[in-house]
Amino acid sequence: MATRFVSDRNIRFTLFEVLAADSLTTYPYYKAHSRKTFDMIIDAAMKLSKTLMHPIFEEMDRKPPEMINNEVHVHPHVKKIMREAGEGGWIASIFPYDLDGEQLPWIMAGICSHIFCASNYSASVYPELARGAANLIASFGNEDQKKTYLPNLLNGVWQGTMALTEPEAGSGLADITTMAYPVTDGIYKIKGQKVFISAGDHNGVDNVVHLMLAKIEGAPAGVKGISLFIVPKKRISADGKLVSNDVAVSQIFHKMGYRGCPITQLAIGEKNDCMGYLVGEPNKGLFYMFQMMNESRLGVGLAATSIATAAYYAALEYTKGRRQGRRPDQKDPSTPMIPIIEHSDVKRMLLFQRAVSEGALSLIMQCFKYADLKIADPENGEKYHLLLEILTPIAKTYPSEMACLSVSQSIQCLGGYGYCDDFPVEQHYRDTRIHPIHEGTTGIQGMDILGRKVTMSNGKAFLLFIDEVNETIKKALEKEGLNHLAGELKASLETLEKVTGALVKIAREKGPEVFLSDATLYLEMFSNVTIAWQWLTQAIVADTALGKKCSENDTNFYQGKLHTCRYFFGYELPKNLGLEKRLLDPDTVTVDMQTKYFTD
Amino acid sequence: MATRFVSDRNIRFTLFEVLAADSLTTYPYYKAHSRKTFDMIIDAAMKLSKTLMHPIFEEMDRKPPEMINNEVHVHPHVKKIMREAGEGGWIASIFPYDLDGEQLPWIMAGICSHIFCASNYSASVYPELARGAANLIASFGNEDQKKTYLPNLLNGVWQGTMALTEPEAGSGLADITTMAYPVTDGIYKIKGQKVFISAGDHNGVDNVVHLMLAKIEGAPAGVKGISLFIVPKKRISADGKLVSNDVAVSQIFHKMGYRGCPITQLAIGEKNDCMGYLVGEPNKGLFYMFQMMNESRLGVGLAATSIATAAYYAALEYTKGRRQGRRPDQKDPSTPMIPIIEHSDVKRMLLFQRAVSEGALSLIMQCFKYADLKIADPENGEKYHLLLEILTPIAKTYPSEMACLSVSQSIQCLGGYGYCDDFPVEQHYRDTRIHPIHEGTTGIQGMDILGRKVTMSNGKAFLLFIDEVNETIKKALEKEGLNHLAGELKASLETLEKVTGALVKIAREKGPEVFLSDATLYLEMFSNVTIAWQWLTQAIVADTALGKKCSENDTNFYQGKLHTCRYFFGYELPKNLGLEKRLLDPDTVTVDMQTKYFTD
Repeated sequence: MATRFVSDRNIRFTLFEVLAADSLTTYPYYKAHSRKTFDMIIDAAMKLSKTLMHPIFEEMDRKPPEMINNEVHVHPHVKKIMREAGEGGWIASIFPYDLDGEQLPWIMAGICSHIFCASNYSASVYPELARGAANLIASFGNEDQKKTYLPNLLNGVWQGTMALTEPEAGSGLADITTMAYPVTDGIYKIKGQKVFISAGDHNGVDNVVHLMLAKIEGAPAGVKGISLFIVPKKRISADGKLVSNDVAVSQIFHKMGYRGCPITQLAIGEKNDCMGYLVGEPNKGLFYMFQMMNESRLGVGLAATSIATAAYYAALEYTKGRRQGRRPDQKDPSTPMIPIIEHSDVKRMLLFQRAVSEGALSLIMQCFKYADLKIADPENGEKYHLLLEILTPIAKTYPSEMACLSVSQSIQCLGGYGYCDDFPVEQHYRDTRIHPIHEGTTGIQGMDILGRKVTMSNGKAFLLFIDEVNETIKKALEKEGLNHLAGELKASLETLEKVTGALVKIAREKGPEVFLSDATLYLEMFSNVTIAWQWLTQAIVADTALGKKCSENDTNFYQGKLHTCRYFFGYELPKNLGLEKRLLDPDTVTVDMQTKYFTD
Repeated sequence: MATRFVSDRNIRFTLFEVLAADSLTTYPYYKAHSRKTFDMIIDAAMKLSKTLMHPIFEEMDRKPPEMINNEVHVHPHVKKIMREAGEGGWIASIFPYDLDGEQLPWIMAGICSHIFCASNYSASVYPELARGAANLIASFGNEDQKKTYLPNLLNGVWQGTMALTEPEAGSGLADITTMAYPVTDGIYKIKGQKVFISAGDHNGVDNVVHLMLAKIEGAPAGVKGISLFIVPKKRISADGKLVSNDVAVSQIFHKMGYRGCPITQLAIGEKNDCMGYLVGEPNKGLFYMFQMMNESRLGVGLAATSIATAAYYAALEYTKGRRQGRRPDQKDPSTPMIPIIEHSDVKRMLLFQRAVSEGALSLIMQCFKYADLKIADPENGEKYHLLLEILTPIAKTYPSEMACLSVSQSIQCLGGYGYCDDFPVEQHYRDTRIHPIHEGTTGIQGMDILGRKVTMSNGKAFLLFIDEVNETIKKALEKEGLNHLAGELKASLETLEKVTGALVKIAREKGPEVFLSDATLYLEMFSNVTIAWQWLTQAIVADTALGKKCSENDTNFYQGKLHTCRYFFGYELPKNLGLEKRLLDPDTVTVDMQTKYFTD
């Protein structure tokens, strides 16, 4: 079992040296905090992960949840984790003081999630979901709903969930069929099926509160007729007791990974006795959910990043210890074998993992900082909002897709041992494969960025992004060691602009189908530019630090950053050449291909 | 459970329309066969797969082998499968008549393996390994060894294995430490450890025959001191009985996939009573093994191809049935949902899977045809030998690496369902991850093609490859619909030549470390050209067929081929642009990177 799953040094580098997270405390909203409290929070998250979550990383996988008497039984430590997350203030941390939160910046909550996810992804999901559900109620619920649900959700006594997907409606929420029939003011009877609901039921909590999408009888068809409801597993009766609310688990799914957390199918209102409580106004459910999308999509990207990080450290530990072969110019077989980390191809694999995991972490923390500035600096709120909007599909998808490849390279570093469960990397490989699927598949994210985000507010989000990247390029051009890379990023950015223009022209001339047919590849190209930007940002900091006196450890750390940046520009960014060729190619083969040609 | 795992139509297209496998029967060695017998053999392989192997595909995964009283217990059907493979002549098929084989071409045995692997990879491994071990004995063993071991191996009563890897020697066979101490003429006492030995012990056979590498006491260091031994689990005593030969299973590994076949660690000669029988001459073990490498490496590539094929058909079936969303220009939510196969992004994912699986199958069958011609047409034997040599690392690696990505896209087509074990794709994803590791990792294959194969015989293998590709380009240039693609392939081939020349120059100027540092990427670039060649070859056949009268089914099939070829040239081949940039980039970051920069 690998002993290390995140890097304390890299966390503090990213947060404080690159992103100056402590500068947030100069804003009134965050003024109670300081670098010192931030450091303490990171230490506490590390401790909690090491003592409570990481020790059961494997066990939760080997003994997945079971259905016993219609109730889902999870690992006994889930209860402990939820209580600790509640009592320790982890779930409530980002909430404002008036809701008993700590008004902690998202970037700090995010880095703690990184630590928790890397230590044990399945375990980390329970409190994350409670926070997400609570945040939705805090944002759009009425006072009564806040009073009823927030304290228990934030204390980890109740579980929260997001209940969107249905057996016949996954990526297409327009077609959900769960119905809500009005009973009395704000109260509805709910009937339907929900599927793939994470932590949709379990014995580690006293109640489960579903934030559920449903259609009110007579509502318009499609997304304009979707409303948001609070649907608890147990509702509070007139005499203040928790009574069954007719939400039954019809099955739990047996999954390849992410096995420590149950994914449930729910039968709602089968006995015609399920009450749902409308959140906000009718038919605005999807709008409310979209407000939460940034949170949950960044969360998925962060989880993938964290799993890739943990797998990278397992590979690093192994490759430093395992001896095999000799340098290519050493032909004498009687000389000792060298640690495999000294082989260029192994270094290449490790640099790839590091480039992905540290590049993605840096991007996601950048996004959280925008989210914090949106709150703390409302005058510039629109700017931060738009940057978040355009970067979210990237922050969700790049880590999700690349973690699958990165963890695969972690396995490769371990060879046959990586394929066996004596080492954690095979579990990471299974766990992380969920991320390109949930919270909007990669295909959905591609259509989001190209079909909505790039053109939103007359292209303003895209222009703001270009400004941010150019800012970094400008700084890098001033540094002798980095101006070559700055030039590469500049060229890539210009290519992205050129391709974007060409695609927008296609939208006008050939309609949406051709326009969006390669949206996934466009997202990939956009992502490579974005991560290159993050790496150049990190390299500027490292280069500056190396210009001053620093310790041997720091010198090695910063040299590692510079080399990984060079790796990204040398091996990853050139992939955009092929993507450019494809995206500018007028051949519309995927549109032309017909179902009947897929014969067998 | 998906009902289809291979395409009968595509198998016959590849074998007979593209590769004219039946033309082999014009050579004396294969003259007893005909297209009719070939068709019957394919039908029989299909039947065997459907009735015996595919039904237990999932069960063998869910109930993996167990150690009970120091013996490995496997699924009870393994015994049946081995006997059927033996009695049905499947194991012996490629052996010459004088060894009771059927002198079947490798291409026919290969296509049967494709069917078996696609139906149930784990189950298919047992007879494949028996054949591999038998073939090694047939090629290099003495008459006595052939008489003793071949009948039972070929009848499926005994299991054969390849026992190379040791706990401290995986990719680096030079450093094996298993020792052989001479006892009497050709007989040695063996002592050592072997690890990751597939089917290294099980209760489905009466005996296990290990083809084992070991070093004779006093042999030279490194690969020049490795000898090959037959080391049976039970040896034949003086009175003709099977007695224990002191080969013990010290553990079986718990693996992510490929769970139906036990991977064992063996303790050999712990009681100082293990006899090994020298095969051929001392110190030539690795040379003998290399003769078999083509066989086993093609086998791994084929297995990966077959898993990708099975996953593709599962995805195809699902995407045809699953309805979700509407066309991008359809804004009315009251219109019916469409099958997801009609979405361009889903078609793109399916075309990718098809391009990989059918492109790889075509390449591997091409290799098997070269192997057959090497036997049947000894006058031109060197040509076929060299083509096999240079293509083998590609035929092993391209399918192995790409199947991981292809099956991942199969999962993606199924969304959340793809992640659950109600569908077979998650098992395919786990199963296929072994292939980039065993029989020489991807890194090893990269060094093989760049460090050995490209320059072997003064570059003759490389030149022969270029001739073969140019032959196809010439034919395609004559076809109006394909001359654009022919031009693309020509340009890619020239780039490959240019990059090869540049790298050979680096070898001279900067030495082997820099030269080989990106060998894996070079292999990737070479592979893309090779698969493009295979696709253009298929497209020529399809285009020609469409020029004649053909049925609606055939029209759809050939149109599918042409579209998939266009997909490969439009989406896959352009990846070489990025690889070219990287391979010509003088920045040697992976060489420069130092272990100490990998801090944590």
